[in-house]
Amino acid sequence: MYRAPVDDITHALKAVSGLGEAMAAGRAGDLGEDLIDAIMEEAGRFATDRIAPLHLPGDRQGARLDDGDVTMPAGWAQAYRDWIEGGWNALPGPEDHGGQGLPMSLAMAAMEMWNSGSIAFALCPTLTMGAVEALEKHATDELRATYLQKLVSGEWTGTMNLTEPQAGSDLGALKTRAEPVGDGTYRLFGQKIYITFGEHDMTDNIVHLVLARLPDAPAGTRGISLFLVPKFLVNDDGTPGARNDVFCNGLEHKMGIHASPTCTMIYGDGKHGDTPGAIGWLVGEENRGLACMFTMMNNARLAVGIQGVAVAEAATQKAVAYANERTQGRAPGWEGEGMSPIVHHPDVQRNLLTMKALTGAARAICYACAHALDMARTGTEEEQRFWHERASLLTPIAKAFSTDIGSEVASLGVQVHGGMGYIEEAGAAVFMRDARIAQIYEGTNGIQAIDLVQRKLPLSDGACVEAYLEELDGVLATLRTSNDTRFGEAGHYLETAMADLRAATEWLVGRMAEGDKQAVLAGATPYQHLFGLTAGGVYLVKGALGAANGVDRASIARFYAENLVGQSGALRDRVEKGAASLAAAGEALVA
Amino acid sequence: MYRAPVDDITHALKAVSGLGEAMAAGRAGDLGEDLIDAIMEEAGRFATDRIAPLHLPGDRQGARLDDGDVTMPAGWAQAYRDWIEGGWNALPGPEDHGGQGLPMSLAMAAMEMWNSGSIAFALCPTLTMGAVEALEKHATDELRATYLQKLVSGEWTGTMNLTEPQAGSDLGALKTRAEPVGDGTYRLFGQKIYITFGEHDMTDNIVHLVLARLPDAPAGTRGISLFLVPKFLVNDDGTPGARNDVFCNGLEHKMGIHASPTCTMIYGDGKHGDTPGAIGWLVGEENRGLACMFTMMNNARLAVGIQGVAVAEAATQKAVAYANERTQGRAPGWEGEGMSPIVHHPDVQRNLLTMKALTGAARAICYACAHALDMARTGTEEEQRFWHERASLLTPIAKAFSTDIGSEVASLGVQVHGGMGYIEEAGAAVFMRDARIAQIYEGTNGIQAIDLVQRKLPLSDGACVEAYLEELDGVLATLRTSNDTRFGEAGHYLETAMADLRAATEWLVGRMAEGDKQAVLAGATPYQHLFGLTAGGVYLVKGALGAANGVDRASIARFYAENLVGQSGALRDRVEKGAASLAAAGEALVA
Repeated sequence: MYRAPVDDITHALKAVSGLGEAMAAGRAGDLGEDLIDAIMEEAGRFATDRIAPLHLPGDRQGARLDDGDVTMPAGWAQAYRDWIEGGWNALPGPEDHGGQGLPMSLAMAAMEMWNSGSIAFALCPTLTMGAVEALEKHATDELRATYLQKLVSGEWTGTMNLTEPQAGSDLGALKTRAEPVGDGTYRLFGQKIYITFGEHDMTDNIVHLVLARLPDAPAGTRGISLFLVPKFLVNDDGTPGARNDVFCNGLEHKMGIHASPTCTMIYGDGKHGDTPGAIGWLVGEENRGLACMFTMMNNARLAVGIQGVAVAEAATQKAVAYANERTQGRAPGWEGEGMSPIVHHPDVQRNLLTMKALTGAARAICYACAHALDMARTGTEEEQRFWHERASLLTPIAKAFSTDIGSEVASLGVQVHGGMGYIEEAGAAVFMRDARIAQIYEGTNGIQAIDLVQRKLPLSDGACVEAYLEELDGVLATLRTSNDTRFGEAGHYLETAMADLRAATEWLVGRMAEGDKQAVLAGATPYQHLFGLTAGGVYLVKGALGAANGVDRASIARFYAENLVGQSGALRDRVEKGAASLAAAGEALVA
Repeated sequence: MYRAPVDDITHALKAVSGLGEAMAAGRAGDLGEDLIDAIMEEAGRFATDRIAPLHLPGDRQGARLDDGDVTMPAGWAQAYRDWIEGGWNALPGPEDHGGQGLPMSLAMAAMEMWNSGSIAFALCPTLTMGAVEALEKHATDELRATYLQKLVSGEWTGTMNLTEPQAGSDLGALKTRAEPVGDGTYRLFGQKIYITFGEHDMTDNIVHLVLARLPDAPAGTRGISLFLVPKFLVNDDGTPGARNDVFCNGLEHKMGIHASPTCTMIYGDGKHGDTPGAIGWLVGEENRGLACMFTMMNNARLAVGIQGVAVAEAATQKAVAYANERTQGRAPGWEGEGMSPIVHHPDVQRNLLTMKALTGAARAICYACAHALDMARTGTEEEQRFWHERASLLTPIAKAFSTDIGSEVASLGVQVHGGMGYIEEAGAAVFMRDARIAQIYEGTNGIQAIDLVQRKLPLSDGACVEAYLEELDGVLATLRTSNDTRFGEAGHYLETAMADLRAATEWLVGRMAEGDKQAVLAGATPYQHLFGLTAGGVYLVKGALGAANGVDRASIARFYAENLVGQSGALRDRVEKGAASLAAAGEALVA
């Protein structure tokens, strides 16, 4: 069973993410190391003791739909209520609406633990957090007054309603309509799919944020507006009142995260209320809904990356524990009686070390991204822009790299379990099933790669990515001068990878300047992988260099560099040469 | 829905596997191209029309256990009976027991199609085929007379009973007892787990092959004997008689292959019959059971490799079809109205081409392995040894590479489907769930790698692997002299990979000679991957060079070489350097 790795998490926060430097520079407010430790310790306890035990039973039981009502698995509603009573939902929330205003990096670190306990559980507050951000930045004072405190505390939950059957990655195709009533409200009509926690029985209201088109809206993405549509309209005293005309008419049967209800939501078919049409309020400006939604989607992307880290951590712990218990064969050098625990077999060690190393690398990238978001809130305008761009650059990598390794690590965990890995009761397969969605939702990892090369590399004319690469160089320079033999050839592999990453970056920027979109798009995914692989390896070195007792951390950093980073040249090659072979072969795929 | 790719399959048989050369040299008996085409066409029709439609409903319904009886999903028993009536089970069976005696390469090609239709369906005859081989080679005339014809026709099915809770990869730990009765029979007592189709309602008898220990047997693997234990004892007229004392007391809840009952079998607890103890007959010599079992396990390993190919093929077809249907966004160069089918997006093409290329590479390796088995049956003693060793060399690669790419391709298929990929009804996720077991059973892929480096590289003092590498070199020499520009830089990448493979081979052989077992074991898995990756790429080139209309095949071979083979250097590095970083970090994993 999962035990929150509080030491690893606080270490990554303080020694890797950049938060340590910010604290040393007096850029982190009142935050001290003791406070970080205390919060993480407490969060870890809740994740370990209360959430993790819900995971397997929740997977087996799943969320159930009956005539529009969704029932959560046994114990989930109570756990959620205890969780919000502990103040956990309010951790990152704005202080003027009851939040604790703690840094995003701490919130994401805690989020990792909730997700390791159960992604299905943590999904609900992840969506609520997104709704809080969107309303805080874009909603009218009145809407904020009515909804924010309840969402910050978690008394009510939030949802994001984007996808429609014909509009997934391409939101420009969405059709849900919003008709102005004339009194400042709108009536919404349409169907939304894949709505996470669109309906559940854990709270007495649910606040939907819905993308829809106004009657006179232009076609495409420039004609989309954002609306707030509560499940229950809110009385003047703040209590839930009449039922709004929105309901859940289907739950998806998914590969994993069974306890998270993935709803089809019907707006405005007249099931509830006298007049058909779900009553909603505009959030932000007309036809600017996509921009509002992106505010929350960016942080949601990081939160999904955290899911990858979280499931990797949980799967690794389980596999390490199993490998220490399970005896089979005799490993070379095994002196004990009878069969050795399989943890002594080199091939099992290779799997486990790969799992540990990838998990640590992805964690570092995600926390560094979260830290950049925190830094973007303070300082001079220039500093804010710098850190905002840094966060923008790291977001697709945090999302895609972490969720790719989440699935990879979970699959390795199944492998370490042997036959038991395939048996659901053992609890290894569920991580693989849960992890798989994170590579898809909030923008598939292919979409992340396109975002990275087309929108993020050009930030500040390339100065954003260059500054980041120089920061990574700095870590390797420290490693070089350290002459620390515990790192083996890590410096060599990572310096080569940095050179490959730089070259691939320049190549992509060059093709973009030439308008060769095909080449840029063909190389996007291998580039994204190269980027994450390299940055993750440098972060592992950084964390090991900074650790007082870093023997294990150094050996993990070394393992990562010597075993995984060697493919950097091949990845660079794919970036630069993928388009030609794609053009030659791609046509044959078209029916 | 899956459509058997008869053209690709017959092409791989004739132009890649070596069967073409054998036919040209008069080494393939009566077999002609027309017969190959006709058999594959017919097999493909059954797989497409009858098996594939059972797949998703079978996954949803699963096999059910009720008081020892297993009920298959609706329609499965009828489909199985029609399948054996079509003579399909008898395809590779010995002619003197009613089989058609067709080459293993054709049987495996047909097996690919049954597995693409449904791995769960094809598993049952896969086990029966193994039982036929073991009995044919090792059983007494009397046992063969009683059982072989029924097993060859498929009227009865066979099982392999190896695993016990404490004995998985390490069969030396098994405890099931066999006590001689004195009349030539034995009474068996014990529990076996993970028994595929250990119980079902498709036939009126089931023939279990069971590993157990005689009372005076030495400890470990040298004290294991093989027994035949029928579900129903057989009357003198060949009909099933009294129920034997063996039954199924549990079905596993698995991640996938839900329609394949994975049984816990109890032998000799007195549930059936007057005297406790399941009645069995010795197969082969006392205490030589493991050798007998390996006869069938080797072919079973190839058959599992075929499962990897099969699921990759089915997942690829589904993803290509979906990518042609689903419209989203506008791909660069798209001139049509509105959104383009996603097959035009470069990132989607990259995924689909990776799927196609890996599938073709794995298919070629498996068919070449099957062909080697066929060649080992004829010719001079020296020729037989050569081909037997070739098959032994290729078996772990066929098993591990194909099942690794099976899971990878199935996962890419989910990704191409976007959100739909995660919804079970769409039928993409099931491939990923089904595929995952193939990396584990019949010896985990880590065990395959150990087998490859420790037992297969030393065959004929290294002459076996050297002859194989030279054969691959020959293909690349043909490519070089062809000056065929359709292959782009494929020759360069594959020649580099061959050099890496050679160097890694020599390095491993050197360490083995030095007795550095730790180093050999640490490098085994990356070596196995390097081997499969390189051989697969060379085979794709071979197939494209030999194809009359090879434009698409050449572009796939090029894509594979230019995009996937570039990691050969990194894999070689891991082989040669993995042990050092493993030794440094592995200790920390031990609890």
